[in-house]
Amino acid sequence: MLKEMLENVKSKSPLVHNITNYVTVNDCANILLACGASPIMADELDEVEEITSICSGLNINIGTLNKRTIPSMIAAGKKANELNHPIVLDPVGAGASGLRTETAKTLLEKVKFSVVRGNLSEIKCLAVGIGNTRGVDSVDFINEKNIDTVVEFAKDFALKNSCVTVITSAVDIITDGKIAYCVYNGDSIMSKITGSGCQLSAMMAAYISANPDNILEAAFACVCAMGLCGETAKKRMSDKDGNSSYRNYLIDAVYNLTPAELEKGARYEIR
Amino acid sequence: MLKEMLENVKSKSPLVHNITNYVTVNDCANILLACGASPIMADELDEVEEITSICSGLNINIGTLNKRTIPSMIAAGKKANELNHPIVLDPVGAGASGLRTETAKTLLEKVKFSVVRGNLSEIKCLAVGIGNTRGVDSVDFINEKNIDTVVEFAKDFALKNSCVTVITSAVDIITDGKIAYCVYNGDSIMSKITGSGCQLSAMMAAYISANPDNILEAAFACVCAMGLCGETAKKRMSDKDGNSSYRNYLIDAVYNLTPAELEKGARYEIR
Amino acid sequence: MLKEMLENVKSKSPLVHNITNYVTVNDCANILLACGASPIMADELDEVEEITSICSGLNINIGTLNKRTIPSMIAAGKKANELNHPIVLDPVGAGASGLRTETAKTLLEKVKFSVVRGNLSEIKCLAVGIGNTRGVDSVDFINEKNIDTVVEFAKDFALKNSCVTVITSAVDIITDGKIAYCVYNGDSIMSKITGSGCQLSAMMAAYISANPDNILEAAFACVCAMGLCGETAKKRMSDKDGNSSYRNYLIDAVYNLTPAELEKGARYEIR
Repeated sequence: MLKEMLENVKSKSPLVHNITNYVTVNDCANILLACGASPIMADELDEVEEITSICSGLNINIGTLNKRTIPSMIAAGKKANELNHPIVLDPVGAGASGLRTETAKTLLEKVKFSVVRGNLSEIKCLAVGIGNTRGVDSVDFINEKNIDTVVEFAKDFALKNSCVTVITSAVDIITDGKIAYCVYNGDSIMSKITGSGCQLSAMMAAYISANPDNILEAAFACVCAMGLCGETAKKRMSDKDGNSSYRNYLIDAVYNLTPAELEKGARYEIR
Repeated sequence: MLKEMLENVKSKSPLVHNITNYVTVNDCANILLACGASPIMADELDEVEEITSICSGLNINIGTLNKRTIPSMIAAGKKANELNHPIVLDPVGAGASGLRTETAKTLLEKVKFSVVRGNLSEIKCLAVGIGNTRGVDSVDFINEKNIDTVVEFAKDFALKNSCVTVITSAVDIITDGKIAYCVYNGDSIMSKITGSGCQLSAMMAAYISANPDNILEAAFACVCAMGLCGETAKKRMSDKDGNSSYRNYLIDAVYNLTPAELEKGARYEIR
Repeated sequence: MLKEMLENVKSKSPLVHNITNYVTVNDCANILLACGASPIMADELDEVEEITSICSGLNINIGTLNKRTIPSMIAAGKKANELNHPIVLDPVGAGASGLRTETAKTLLEKVKFSVVRGNLSEIKCLAVGIGNTRGVDSVDFINEKNIDTVVEFAKDFALKNSCVTVITSAVDIITDGKIAYCVYNGDSIMSKITGSGCQLSAMMAAYISANPDNILEAAFACVCAMGLCGETAKKRMSDKDGNSSYRNYLIDAVYNLTPAELEKGARYEIR
């Protein structure tokens, strides 16, 4: 099943509209191209509805949020909803400031998201209004001890918000409220490059755009793909390599990942 | 003749003012440095005239367009015209939204551009108001069958707008309305990195700034240089490399390209 | 002493708030991660005080300055001063436009900076109002002949502005007005990548955040680290490499630099 998800990205080559931050935007564009999709970035209120109309999906990321683009996010989101385009929300840094928390909540109210992807702190903040966000880095890790609790929490969030919920950490959880996939792919060095989360969200928009009738499976496949590529990139590192080469290797791995490798390399369990 | 164009870039090291998008801006800066020029990015209305005055040329790119910077583009363009600085327009995504189409047209009316560089969809949109732009990716390709038609179209656009017109695709066309160079350098993987077009436009601003009396030849040399470097970068790829390493190799190739290699490696015909 | 400075960065992993330009922001984030710190970028007035409050230090960089973020810079700076967080100012392009010069001066008046880091043109412009800034690249070099004069100038600037002053060129000067360290590490190719200065300033914010009681030594250690990594990266280059690979190697070198290597590799004298 995983391999079909990636095959569809490659055969349909969805055009994905991104309203995202200026820190990791180039990486998001390149990872979209790497997986077989096409990116377009546009955040001006006057054009976002038109732009999202020619796309197959939308990715909204609130890193480097500013007031000019909040109405653009809402307008694009509503238009995408009208057109039944799948949408990802990445609530970067929710909990780190009132502006981010409030904006993420407003977006959740006004736009129906197909997937919300964040770290545990960010999703907690959206769920209960109390975050423990350390900037954009999560301080709440998912481990063997708390995984059952986190899975329950994620399922609850998914049901309450009618969206697939993806919480990423050492273990990643993907759930629609009924089934939860726990993915064990990945490598800790992924947290040493900026924007691995942003890249995952952008790529997820491509996966769900190419598989609009299988949002849960597409999101799950995307998380496996990213983690597996994180492992492939790690194996490629030599002594002199550091996080900058790793970032190239990660996108290169996405470029070279085949559907069959994804199917074979995914490590997960269902809870 | 091609080699003199690059020699002048290297000896004069022109400072190029860029008003460009936030997706590919870092690559544009690095490719300018790679070819021997210097970049400066500035888009605030209050300073663009001063900034452009200390430069030798200007590059205006409407990717991630927003209303704040449209007046900056016009002001910088007018000042550069006053000072006889060469200017490139890259109408990214013209045809994808009314804002982009209208802004590109307004710029063409208010500013005299030395070079307009885009894909066929974008240039068509500016010519006849009907675009077929698929976001920022062209859907209209130039091939053996339609090349004569496209050359005529490009010549017509060049004459009507009194500018050198550069249409890039599998074959690239550079024309001043009288002579048309068709360049066959390049590799299809260039479309798998974000911003190869933006990078070409930025580098073109350097080439024409260093060769202000030979705009057509400078633009032609720049297209050959980019295509040739695209080939060099492709040859350097190993099994594990993907589009991210390719992007580095491309800029590296520009850094290492000598005038003699450019002269020798260019593949083109005149129509 | 140098090694303790880096050890503290690695053990404390300071969260650094950056208000910076969109050209080199990704590199700044990745170099902060490379040295052991964590980045957060936020520039909206509504959130900058909150964001800076959860951080240990602040980095203000006026490249791609725009009017929206000037009040954000001032507000974040004042809040950081209230909280006694160390702050770096990078007056990119001061002297290139009235807006940049005036903004840098206003920031110096309203915010107490721990470190001001720029090239000689930029610092001269702030000192005497007369710059010779060629865009963002320095035209004033420090060499054997003028070094005594420049050291005196830097000391004077440091005393008048009650800040550690860092002037970077072929030789780098770090002074608190009493002691001046002249650092000889580095390589000329560092000027062929965009933002090596921005990256140094960002990393410096990490060093001083982790060593708030030793600002001078921390700034000095950071300059040595960057120069030393510039040399390491240069040694790694092969024939086909250019400035794009060099940029990766530089950040990789920062990632791999150990405190002991820093201590051993630093080349400097005290004046």
